[in-house]
Amino acid sequence: MTDPAGAPTGRTFASDNWAPAHPAVLAAVAAANEGHAPAYGYDPWTEGAVARFRALLGDDVTVFPVFNGTAANVLCLEALLRPHEAVICADLAHIATDECGAPERYLGSKLLTVAAPHCKLTPALAATRLAGLGDEHHAQARVLSVTQSTERGTVYSVDELRALGEWAHANGLLFHIDGARIANAAASLGVTLRETTRDVGADALSFGGTKNGAIGAEAVVLFRPELARLMPFQRKQGMQLNSKMRYVSAQLAALLDGDLWLANAGQANALAARLEAAVTGLPGLEIVHPVQANAIFVRLPLAAIPRLQQHTYFHVYDEATGLCRWMTAWDTSAADVDRFAAAVRAELTG
Amino acid sequence: MTDPAGAPTGRTFASDNWAPAHPAVLAAVAAANEGHAPAYGYDPWTEGAVARFRALLGDDVTVFPVFNGTAANVLCLEALLRPHEAVICADLAHIATDECGAPERYLGSKLLTVAAPHCKLTPALAATRLAGLGDEHHAQARVLSVTQSTERGTVYSVDELRALGEWAHANGLLFHIDGARIANAAASLGVTLRETTRDVGADALSFGGTKNGAIGAEAVVLFRPELARLMPFQRKQGMQLNSKMRYVSAQLAALLDGDLWLANAGQANALAARLEAAVTGLPGLEIVHPVQANAIFVRLPLAAIPRLQQHTYFHVYDEATGLCRWMTAWDTSAADVDRFAAAVRAELTG
Amino acid sequence: MTDPAGAPTGRTFASDNWAPAHPAVLAAVAAANEGHAPAYGYDPWTEGAVARFRALLGDDVTVFPVFNGTAANVLCLEALLRPHEAVICADLAHIATDECGAPERYLGSKLLTVAAPHCKLTPALAATRLAGLGDEHHAQARVLSVTQSTERGTVYSVDELRALGEWAHANGLLFHIDGARIANAAASLGVTLRETTRDVGADALSFGGTKNGAIGAEAVVLFRPELARLMPFQRKQGMQLNSKMRYVSAQLAALLDGDLWLANAGQANALAARLEAAVTGLPGLEIVHPVQANAIFVRLPLAAIPRLQQHTYFHVYDEATGLCRWMTAWDTSAADVDRFAAAVRAELTG
Amino acid sequence: MTDPAGAPTGRTFASDNWAPAHPAVLAAVAAANEGHAPAYGYDPWTEGAVARFRALLGDDVTVFPVFNGTAANVLCLEALLRPHEAVICADLAHIATDECGAPERYLGSKLLTVAAPHCKLTPALAATRLAGLGDEHHAQARVLSVTQSTERGTVYSVDELRALGEWAHANGLLFHIDGARIANAAASLGVTLRETTRDVGADALSFGGTKNGAIGAEAVVLFRPELARLMPFQRKQGMQLNSKMRYVSAQLAALLDGDLWLANAGQANALAARLEAAVTGLPGLEIVHPVQANAIFVRLPLAAIPRLQQHTYFHVYDEATGLCRWMTAWDTSAADVDRFAAAVRAELTG
Repeated sequence: MTDPAGAPTGRTFASDNWAPAHPAVLAAVAAANEGHAPAYGYDPWTEGAVARFRALLGDDVTVFPVFNGTAANVLCLEALLRPHEAVICADLAHIATDECGAPERYLGSKLLTVAAPHCKLTPALAATRLAGLGDEHHAQARVLSVTQSTERGTVYSVDELRALGEWAHANGLLFHIDGARIANAAASLGVTLRETTRDVGADALSFGGTKNGAIGAEAVVLFRPELARLMPFQRKQGMQLNSKMRYVSAQLAALLDGDLWLANAGQANALAARLEAAVTGLPGLEIVHPVQANAIFVRLPLAAIPRLQQHTYFHVYDEATGLCRWMTAWDTSAADVDRFAAAVRAELTG
Repeated sequence: MTDPAGAPTGRTFASDNWAPAHPAVLAAVAAANEGHAPAYGYDPWTEGAVARFRALLGDDVTVFPVFNGTAANVLCLEALLRPHEAVICADLAHIATDECGAPERYLGSKLLTVAAPHCKLTPALAATRLAGLGDEHHAQARVLSVTQSTERGTVYSVDELRALGEWAHANGLLFHIDGARIANAAASLGVTLRETTRDVGADALSFGGTKNGAIGAEAVVLFRPELARLMPFQRKQGMQLNSKMRYVSAQLAALLDGDLWLANAGQANALAARLEAAVTGLPGLEIVHPVQANAIFVRLPLAAIPRLQQHTYFHVYDEATGLCRWMTAWDTSAADVDRFAAAVRAELTG
Repeated sequence: MTDPAGAPTGRTFASDNWAPAHPAVLAAVAAANEGHAPAYGYDPWTEGAVARFRALLGDDVTVFPVFNGTAANVLCLEALLRPHEAVICADLAHIATDECGAPERYLGSKLLTVAAPHCKLTPALAATRLAGLGDEHHAQARVLSVTQSTERGTVYSVDELRALGEWAHANGLLFHIDGARIANAAASLGVTLRETTRDVGADALSFGGTKNGAIGAEAVVLFRPELARLMPFQRKQGMQLNSKMRYVSAQLAALLDGDLWLANAGQANALAARLEAAVTGLPGLEIVHPVQANAIFVRLPLAAIPRLQQHTYFHVYDEATGLCRWMTAWDTSAADVDRFAAAVRAELTG
Repeated sequence: MTDPAGAPTGRTFASDNWAPAHPAVLAAVAAANEGHAPAYGYDPWTEGAVARFRALLGDDVTVFPVFNGTAANVLCLEALLRPHEAVICADLAHIATDECGAPERYLGSKLLTVAAPHCKLTPALAATRLAGLGDEHHAQARVLSVTQSTERGTVYSVDELRALGEWAHANGLLFHIDGARIANAAASLGVTLRETTRDVGADALSFGGTKNGAIGAEAVVLFRPELARLMPFQRKQGMQLNSKMRYVSAQLAALLDGDLWLANAGQANALAARLEAAVTGLPGLEIVHPVQANAIFVRLPLAAIPRLQQHTYFHVYDEATGLCRWMTAWDTSAADVDRFAAAVRAELTG
């Protein structure tokens, strides 16, 4: 799934990180470009971004802007564990499959994966990886990590998350949420950021902005001050301390202002739902997972795939079975969807 | 030297990374904000940035945009060595003093530091850390790393660099240049980028854009294709693969276009020289290092420091001895310098 | 399965590393205790041990004695891969389950596990973890690692190993054998060390002596000289360079002399077979895996377990299902087996 | 200083790790070779070794036998710091110069070295590396590590150690003693193990047995229970958990029994003093450091070195200046010393 050089660059269904930045984000970056500002996050824009997170999540959260999602995940995990400890996660979790081993490399820790239907863990599934606690021969499970919304476009309900958080804490584990697309989940559930993170027991959140209309802005969010004590050093040593941090912080602030983050995600979700509705029942097309955020996983006839990619580019996940992902973004329009749905219909019924 | 929250944010002499982005860089980011583009660097802006580097440095260089200077250095070094190998560098090298141990943490490698007058290594100084080659008890020196311009505002001449490169290669070492301020060096020397990097024997260059008018843009530049074979994976595992890379690449391209990088650096250098000239000989003020780029290291009477910081903020490097750094940036004006120089004169002679 | 302090210390079926050293090994250590010898492996005993390995495996193998099996595995893997590369192994492989994450910690590499019936991989199973080659988002599978004999007491046939080695090489992978119990495998198969390692395509072998009658002696064996170039440094940096190496090397030599390694393993294997035969068909007892080396995995009625442990101590692998391991060692006697088999019979049929 | 293959193996002055094991140690290993014993340290010999350490050092110390000195140092440091923290040590400290970068590789931490006359740190010297505490750009000094006796054969007095321990604690650092030759120091000072470790404020001690008559036996000793909480896992993940630990523990116990450790070290020290006395004042020979333990550092005429090495082998430390080390061991005899001293005298005065 390497991104193809020279692919068509009109609006696609390839990925939300193929989408441009929202104009309000760009405007915020431009507005931050005034005069000198202390480097490394000691600037008013960063203060402002942190204040917005605290308004949403509580005054005692700590927020550390970082460059990308891989780093947000790795640094969240570093706040929660030591090298001999391990992370329980789904086998298709981004940290397990799409970060080229960054967690293992940087943390020295093991990921304990478990196959999870529709990419969603349950306490029962997680419990299968709890073996060997106290036994020095085994990496010690210390963190439960889930992705919300998931890598397969599904969304944990608040109750499901709360059950996972309670299970984690009851078993001596900390609870991490990879929120690269937390906005899509909150919009899908119709809940606040706090309701789907802190209130379900999360200890740490990777907050994602990049896929939701930023140029590039993610944050490590830690819900208990004692977890954050070493993070200034850990972020710097982790190569994620931004000298001109104001430009990342301004993006985060712009997304949170006026709930742009929710509006962007809601738009992407709505268009995914529209596309799902338009293609459901077409012959030869199978919707593989519930469509609950901004991704539709479909199985398509192999011959149809290249023709449809020609119309609007998207990623193939499995060449053998025809598994494909259609992903909407904040900038997807109803017209985009309708045009593509028509093409799919024509292809499959023509 | 933690950056003080709430410091004055007019133009300062604090650091070139307190300066905003150059308008042309900002415009390039805005111009890149059009439609969908393949993520992770498979986009035309990245292709364009790479092409510009190749025009300057040769068609066989490889260029990997990354987020910050720490990462550029760490990834350049990863391209050049294995964990049991070591890096010879000056004791005040940024990699040794200002990266919170990121090289040791990520690479597992040792830095072999040597005290260097005016922060400039020589073959003779470097040779003092060559001991134990072939002896399995000792980390094996494998890379010579110099910073150009240096952390103390000095600049290696082309001949000095060439001698270091030749010494390195003659002794089985590879040659890395930390070019966080390579633009200031090139402008100071009046040479091309190639003349102060590839042509002196560099194997790898950390190319810095952030301090020279970017929002945040650095690059790993490798001068031999075989050094780059693993870098796509190393950059990803190193948490430095940017999903929306076009925005960083557009910045790099904007800096290289029309030699904006040289103009920006030249402006900063010229204003540093103007400031140096204006304060040279003032009673109680000592210029500690030759002023060859955009930093002036001065010793000031202790009592004068807070009053002058009040006028225009700058960093104190040693509270005990009154060692301070005045650093100019691409946006420093002659009026800034003249006002400050007058204040210094008044303070020291008043 | 932490070893219980104060457990009975007569002969047990707990583990082959509960057994003492063979008298010939102890005698070799005593014989090595003469006068001064160069440290760090530059001694005649190490030379002698290496010569014995070369006589068995070919003149171009390189052999690096190390302290324990975890280190032998980790260093073999370090010889074969870089941090962004990964190891395909069975989900119950010792490197995956019993080394407290040492491979991830030290190598920074990912282990790609796959469920394997009777703990034996096949090319088809291994192929399920080959996805994403060339894609920088994914750790790159680089090594296939199998354990011979396996962690479940089964043994790969020579043909099975050769098929795995060929598959590995055909897919650009290197082939590692964790031979903590390679002696039991060779004895079981009736083949030479070479026939079950080098001749099946192994690139690296963790040779185990500790479980086979040594005090503590393992070795990294590399089958191609170019893989060994960095190992002297890697072993030292990996905290495995023994200053008084002669005492480990003398153990290895003693095991290889007169094929003591095969005799020891053959004895353990034969007694395991005797025990298997004696209990096969007893009511309530299930033999879980083919018994091909020196371990018998049985499921027992839960109530019977503590009473039988009282007779002769052994490890429980799963408290819930009654999965237990009976392991013989070089010092197990027929009388030990017969007494225990009688006790099992009495317990289950009484 | 790689140990030369094929060097003469009668008694030498090369290193205390060229010496054989003391007969009592070998006897203890043989005595431990009885029947089955729980693996991984849950055996009575390990219990016995720990009890002996507790009798000497206090009931609340924790003791973890490991394989070698590099590992004892690295694991002691792991107990004391996190990766973004650093170790202040002498520039010639074994951890800095003779472990092929193992501390950096395994811990990810930086070593902050300082030149130290006669290889002995002082609070004033250590304080030169304390800069940047609280500044996220700098690795945070967290441990002060000294070697007792030092790598240059000198010994800290109890008062000197206490001053270092107090300075460390007053500055928020923990205090580690690399005691690879702690026996030689205790014997030299005429104090107990406790007086030169715990009572001077040490938080962790690398206890060395190998150089003092063992086959191979070192231990991580932690003086406060809270430092030891993770060590069982850290030792295993650090590839230092010995399956048949009884054989290492028996060695440690044998050394502590009847103060054999002190007798062995006292013999080595006395013979070093005898040799020093015999050669002091010889023309062309310079004693470079005070001789306080079992090493004599001398400068010799270059031409004399190979001839004297022919007589009794020893290591050259600097080919250019003729710096050599003569090291005695527990098995050095007065006759050895007298013969060699006569040869030196003949060489230098002949």
